[in-house]
Amino acid sequence: MLAELQQLLGPENVLTSREDLIPYAFDGTAALKQLPRAVVFPRDAAQISAILKLARAHRTPVITRGSGTGLSGGSVPVENALVLCVLKMDRILELDPRNLTLLAEPGVITQKIFETADAVGLFYPPDPGSMKISTIGGNVAENSGGLRGLKYGVTRDYVMGLEVVLADGSVCWLGNKCVKDVAGYNLRDLFIGSEGTLGIITKVLLKLLPKPAARQTLLATFSQMDAAAETVSAIIAAKIIPCTLEFLDRTTIACVEAYAKVGLPNDAEALLLIETDGHPAAAADEATRIEDLARSQGALQVRRARDAAESAQLALARRSAFSALARRKPTTILEDVTVPRSELAKMIRSVQHIAAKHTLDIAVFGHFGDGNLHPTILTDERNTAEMERVHHAIAEIVDAALALGGTITGEHGVGLAKKPFLKQQLGESSHALLKAIKHTLDPDALLNPGKIFD
Amino acid sequence: MLAELQQLLGPENVLTSREDLIPYAFDGTAALKQLPRAVVFPRDAAQISAILKLARAHRTPVITRGSGTGLSGGSVPVENALVLCVLKMDRILELDPRNLTLLAEPGVITQKIFETADAVGLFYPPDPGSMKISTIGGNVAENSGGLRGLKYGVTRDYVMGLEVVLADGSVCWLGNKCVKDVAGYNLRDLFIGSEGTLGIITKVLLKLLPKPAARQTLLATFSQMDAAAETVSAIIAAKIIPCTLEFLDRTTIACVEAYAKVGLPNDAEALLLIETDGHPAAAADEATRIEDLARSQGALQVRRARDAAESAQLALARRSAFSALARRKPTTILEDVTVPRSELAKMIRSVQHIAAKHTLDIAVFGHFGDGNLHPTILTDERNTAEMERVHHAIAEIVDAALALGGTITGEHGVGLAKKPFLKQQLGESSHALLKAIKHTLDPDALLNPGKIFD
Repeated sequence: MLAELQQLLGPENVLTSREDLIPYAFDGTAALKQLPRAVVFPRDAAQISAILKLARAHRTPVITRGSGTGLSGGSVPVENALVLCVLKMDRILELDPRNLTLLAEPGVITQKIFETADAVGLFYPPDPGSMKISTIGGNVAENSGGLRGLKYGVTRDYVMGLEVVLADGSVCWLGNKCVKDVAGYNLRDLFIGSEGTLGIITKVLLKLLPKPAARQTLLATFSQMDAAAETVSAIIAAKIIPCTLEFLDRTTIACVEAYAKVGLPNDAEALLLIETDGHPAAAADEATRIEDLARSQGALQVRRARDAAESAQLALARRSAFSALARRKPTTILEDVTVPRSELAKMIRSVQHIAAKHTLDIAVFGHFGDGNLHPTILTDERNTAEMERVHHAIAEIVDAALALGGTITGEHGVGLAKKPFLKQQLGESSHALLKAIKHTLDPDALLNPGKIFD
Repeated sequence: MLAELQQLLGPENVLTSREDLIPYAFDGTAALKQLPRAVVFPRDAAQISAILKLARAHRTPVITRGSGTGLSGGSVPVENALVLCVLKMDRILELDPRNLTLLAEPGVITQKIFETADAVGLFYPPDPGSMKISTIGGNVAENSGGLRGLKYGVTRDYVMGLEVVLADGSVCWLGNKCVKDVAGYNLRDLFIGSEGTLGIITKVLLKLLPKPAARQTLLATFSQMDAAAETVSAIIAAKIIPCTLEFLDRTTIACVEAYAKVGLPNDAEALLLIETDGHPAAAADEATRIEDLARSQGALQVRRARDAAESAQLALARRSAFSALARRKPTTILEDVTVPRSELAKMIRSVQHIAAKHTLDIAVFGHFGDGNLHPTILTDERNTAEMERVHHAIAEIVDAALALGGTITGEHGVGLAKKPFLKQQLGESSHALLKAIKHTLDPDALLNPGKIFD
């Protein structure tokens, strides 16, 4: 098969030596790795179709991959697998300002999508934490979130069309530039978030928005977590939907302050980073109301940025959270449970309780407006006794989230990391339905086998 | 089977006499009718599950139906079918202002959803033309649109969760109250717009928004259609996304004026109804800029409403379009092609050309901002020669829309009316994929057979 792949793609697009394969043996998820048999770099859908036909003939699993920034092991190979890396399919094919769309190949870096839109006064809202290196194809395959979910939604909300190569090598276009289209089942949304298990995305048609004219950034700290939660409830009750509503707990605040020196109070139990955007009068008005609401809930301090530079400085506290935490211990496990917004304070308390029970160091930060928490377990994967406790803690965190009407994963995907918990969330009949869909689209279990479910 | 149904549901919930069945033999689509064998009114998912098991045992097709306002024949029975009418499942089960959600049974009237949200300062944006009588279950099954698509999207964008009964009688919950959820394939979106062919929707969890604080309404008329189209392009280029951007052509303007007497100029070739909403300063600012843009494109007249009453008066011109047209001829066939917004002026010219070629009376109105046109054929279904020309014209309108990158249906669904054109839009491989999904979910072709595709 390797000779056929070399002939198809050119030898420079087929990696087979051990040293070359090592970077493709893992993604951004801790403690998961497996060397593939080879890595290939196709240029278009026709080559991908040919690769899949070869892989099927040789019964070789295919793992699609972009930059490998995933946090659930979704692009970790299985034994003897072919890694299909889309990084050389990296062209922006069209920017259409009249229809507010952008057509890209899957290997385009997310940040480049944002910048291309921004340069003509348009806005691509999804901003996953890894956007400077992640690919748009990976974002679509994982339905990535980010910091603007509450107001702007997630990657799914900006995908108008997809070109997909199916397991049998056929090429499908799903969707178009029409704002409304009800011609047949929506299969586009089936592929969004399917984690490389149903087909391979070869083109992405994205929806853009006009760039908001103004933005206001606030940072508020609280001595009690409940006061922060009440502030969030009060903001929503006041009919304000901020574009960003982020949360850091005491441990995260301390780590961020040690790392980034942004002048955070050392007696704060909770920090909220809040941004509003839109028409200048609307953003300013909302920011003033939010400031009042935070003060009336007894905020320790409320800082409001006067300009873009100060806004970036305040946002740094949140943007550096993961890096700041990751410095503390050798292994950082980023959890991703999500609950309805109203249940978030309860969920944070559950995590604190679980951390104490298992004597683990768990920091919590995340997207308060979305109910999307990142309990971050600071540990060392070489410490087998502690890792045992970590696994128990994760199972209990998942139980707590589901008991509150939540989900096992808000934005990182199921992959390998959350596979054991999927049936518990979905129930037997929905889980069986997912498997039936998988079997229909990929009867030979060729595409990313063993992910999402067995 | 009828005796078993009566025992299951009570005799008052099973209709079998010819007079009782007649209202269920058609929907809102012209020239399509078929008497069912019986009509049943279940109360919950458990009864629906039992009905489906009975229907399967007796190989009886099941047609799910709400108020029957559909415009593509999606709820027209087939011979010997059981119509499953959800109108008695009409409770709003929960309004959750903290999470901005509303949980409803499928038989709730759309208008009631809007009013329930409105009463607590919240907003359910989708407003299909039939919202005063259509059901939310029907809206979800058809993925209904409305007049606010450009800014607010369609029904799909407001569905967070569904309870669905599958053909085998199993009950699935798909989705939840989480703003972000990537646990497994998105099957919720597969059922939205599936027109009763994949499962029966028994609960709908909807997302609500804060009610916009202010709204501005403008009505502009133009002597040339191109000037109207240029105005729309200029609005989008100015980074303004109105919530409503509606269009009427000369014929529709004349019919509306004759019917509703709103003082429209008789020399206008195009009318735009434009609404902006949001923060009062933002809405007012946008309205002023839109007014300037319309005038600079040489609008005949630009009227801006000073209050809610005047706003309703201006909107009446658009809201009464269909009724005004329907008075002219015995049969009104409402087409629904949609193209990318940038192609709309071309599409309108194509329709005018096709009307002239076939000597047909075709008025055009629709959602300019969404590229969603309703070419409305005014005819008489008893005139077989003219109906022959109507069918040719429809095929040519569809061809023209597809040539411009459009869709055969923007918001009315495929049903029976657009079934002959679906493969032409999707292509062989996507069409085959849809059929494979249908076969997986409904192997006995029990649910709404013969719709969307054969």
